[in-house]
Amino acid sequence: MVDAPVPQQLGGSIGIVGLGLIGGSLGLDLQAQGHRVHALVHREVTAERARQRGLASAVSTDPAVLEGSALVVLALPLDRLLDPSPELVAALPEQAVVTDVGSVKAPVLACWRSLHPRFVASHPMAGTAQAGVEAGVAGLFAGRPWVATPEPGTDPGALEAVRALAQQVGARWLTCAAAEHDQAVALISHLPVLVSAALLQTAHRLGAEAATAARPGTGALAGLVRGLASSGFADTTRVGGGNPELGTLMARCNQAAVLTALAGYRQQLDELEQQVRQGDWEKLRCELEACAQLRPQFVEPIS
Amino acid sequence: MVDAPVPQQLGGSIGIVGLGLIGGSLGLDLQAQGHRVHALVHREVTAERARQRGLASAVSTDPAVLEGSALVVLALPLDRLLDPSPELVAALPEQAVVTDVGSVKAPVLACWRSLHPRFVASHPMAGTAQAGVEAGVAGLFAGRPWVATPEPGTDPGALEAVRALAQQVGARWLTCAAAEHDQAVALISHLPVLVSAALLQTAHRLGAEAATAARPGTGALAGLVRGLASSGFADTTRVGGGNPELGTLMARCNQAAVLTALAGYRQQLDELEQQVRQGDWEKLRCELEACAQLRPQFVEPIS
Repeated sequence: MVDAPVPQQLGGSIGIVGLGLIGGSLGLDLQAQGHRVHALVHREVTAERARQRGLASAVSTDPAVLEGSALVVLALPLDRLLDPSPELVAALPEQAVVTDVGSVKAPVLACWRSLHPRFVASHPMAGTAQAGVEAGVAGLFAGRPWVATPEPGTDPGALEAVRALAQQVGARWLTCAAAEHDQAVALISHLPVLVSAALLQTAHRLGAEAATAARPGTGALAGLVRGLASSGFADTTRVGGGNPELGTLMARCNQAAVLTALAGYRQQLDELEQQVRQGDWEKLRCELEACAQLRPQFVEPIS
Repeated sequence: MVDAPVPQQLGGSIGIVGLGLIGGSLGLDLQAQGHRVHALVHREVTAERARQRGLASAVSTDPAVLEGSALVVLALPLDRLLDPSPELVAALPEQAVVTDVGSVKAPVLACWRSLHPRFVASHPMAGTAQAGVEAGVAGLFAGRPWVATPEPGTDPGALEAVRALAQQVGARWLTCAAAEHDQAVALISHLPVLVSAALLQTAHRLGAEAATAARPGTGALAGLVRGLASSGFADTTRVGGGNPELGTLMARCNQAAVLTALAGYRQQLDELEQQVRQGDWEKLRCELEACAQLRPQFVEPIS
């Protein structure tokens, strides 16, 4: 997190709707930077715990808490973001800049561009393993990408305010078209979940089947598969064994891009399979060599 | 590593052929347990460095160094193990127990069961990221599986000696049929490499293609895909970006089991894809929920 001066666009209180991982972390960072944060949550028990944790300066279940906010961040799960209550929409000050943190952008724009005149679609890309009011931590956004997807009708001043917000918490600011964003996250975030889940299912199913065929009733291979799984298997299956609600929501809200990514993936896997089937070991070695060269380009972020 | 008394089967010097990650680590652990270790390596420069690192009590490029060894561990890469030099075979004392450390077992047995009367096929499952004479470390085998794949013709006394060796360095001893072992490692070790490599290729290819289509010449999406890749992508692609020689060797030596694993994988991925295509979100959520339940069964080894 950088110690930037408070930008003019962030004057007044900042509203946050939802105090899960993203909302709570944002509340902590913004208060540390001297901002007053007014948060709206769904349930009183969450409000109470958020107050104890100091996630915001004021926390309420009454939408009126957002009154006077110059900027409101909708830190809601995608399903609630795409089906907002009329009370929430009515409580957003008309002059406020409004942004979201959803991990898919085209459907968010389709829903929100007509709901608020100063809406800016954005996506801070920070960890998703934790959720709920206990998840928020200081410094979550430092060095992480914060992508906005402006379109021709986006208010330029509103976009600047969201940029100031992202930079205030130390994030790396990027803009692109919503469709580009959604294709990119399909490839690097949503496809890996399915690829990884299928690997878990295969190890489970084939392990059990082969065991039954080899020694009926012993389940020896199934146990062996489990007993031998090591760090490589653990890494490759981590995202496939993650939050099922989140994985489903990503696929649902980014269906077309995920299907495109899956089609491309199938083609690559077919080619590798063909090399194994034909015993074209030199070609396979070249492909794996190319992969070894590729990976550092992805994993060390280009800033 | 356990401080077990030196078992009778391990009396006399222990021979190690090859001082890479497995051979070097074994040399360090066995010497720490009071054994005399005689090592045969291919090149004089390796011998010199191995002596400096203290990987064995005696290191030579002359096969005669193995004379008098009660047990010889062939710690060679699979390709060299499957095509041993006549000098090596001739240098193995006829009364010695001989074992290997190859990660595929059926082809090793096919080659070695006729080459030495006291051969036992085995596979200590320890990390493979490092290689060469610098790679060996103390304690590599502690708590890791060491799988032997005896067959009806295997000398029971020889099998006991290899078990004593594995336990001497703190490994977890397992036995199973060679075919079962090879199917299990295809599922938990060789399939993940291909699944993970295909993901890297897809992110690379689709990122570049979509970028060209969207904004010819800018490569914007390709950069975005790279800029947004996070820990989930990093984990899922780790083994796919690993050692290309090793990945190719595994597929080559375990071709049938890898193809079976790939066929099973394709079926699981097809099912997930169908759920996404049909928008069957409840089914997808159930599958991902099952994956979240499955993963801890694999990742926490059953002992």
